[in-house]
Amino acid sequence: MFELHPTLEKDTVEVARLDVCRVLLMRDQTYPWLILVPAREDLRDLDDLSATDRVTVMSEIDRASKVLKALFSPYKINVAALGNMVEQLHIHVIARFQADPAWPGPVWGVQPPADYDEAQRLDLLKKLHTAFGVE
Amino acid sequence: MFELHPTLEKDTVEVARLDVCRVLLMRDQTYPWLILVPAREDLRDLDDLSATDRVTVMSEIDRASKVLKALFSPYKINVAALGNMVEQLHIHVIARFQADPAWPGPVWGVQPPADYDEAQRLDLLKKLHTAFGVE
Repeated sequence: MFELHPTLEKDTVEVARLDVCRVLLMRDQTYPWLILVPAREDLRDLDDLSATDRVTVMSEIDRASKVLKALFSPYKINVAALGNMVEQLHIHVIARFQADPAWPGPVWGVQPPADYDEAQRLDLLKKLHTAFGVE
Repeated sequence: MFELHPTLEKDTVEVARLDVCRVLLMRDQTYPWLILVPAREDLRDLDDLSATDRVTVMSEIDRASKVLKALFSPYKINVAALGNMVEQLHIHVIARFQADPAWPGPVWGVQPPADYDEAQRLDLLKKLHTAFGVE
């Protein structure tokens, strides 16, 4: 049975459950940052996905990218499946701005995550729920 | 008409032309590192791909990942479309090892690329050509 990795559980809050992926919001107000986790057991790398799931996951990445673009008008979207630290397959979809603290480098390891305060998080979750069609 | 970005041209050597992507080898012997560039004009983000190309690109990423796994038996594959510095859409597919200099962080910006010497590069290209079915 699929179980979300405890580190992802701790670092994020759930936004939506799509056909294959859980969509999670990273608890880091520095960047609008979603993480997609295919709800399948024992996946490490993107190429561990079945051919069918691969197509769905790619379209879910697309959807998450377009949600971030619609809500935040970022300069660039970064998409990455790294998983060197948390080995459960997860895909980062991050809205990037030329004024963000990591620009133009990647965001990982640049500064510790700064969680949203509760009001901010609820407000953002509400927007994300609407964007992903969560009731 | 599609033209490869001059920075990608300079930093890589061409391995293969798949249905949508050019497969390039990064001139950096630190990591077995392929770059896939969809040969389409004016793409910046992964979600700029058409729905049809998206499916093909995902399967080409899959193919590149499996080639690296077969040739190098890495611990992990990193896949990323960042493009903050070179804005033409390109997808990194990198074989990672727990003993590599950037582990467990991402590879970008850790150390300057160390090009292969010519004999090494020709040898690796030969293996890659066979793996991708290039005559």
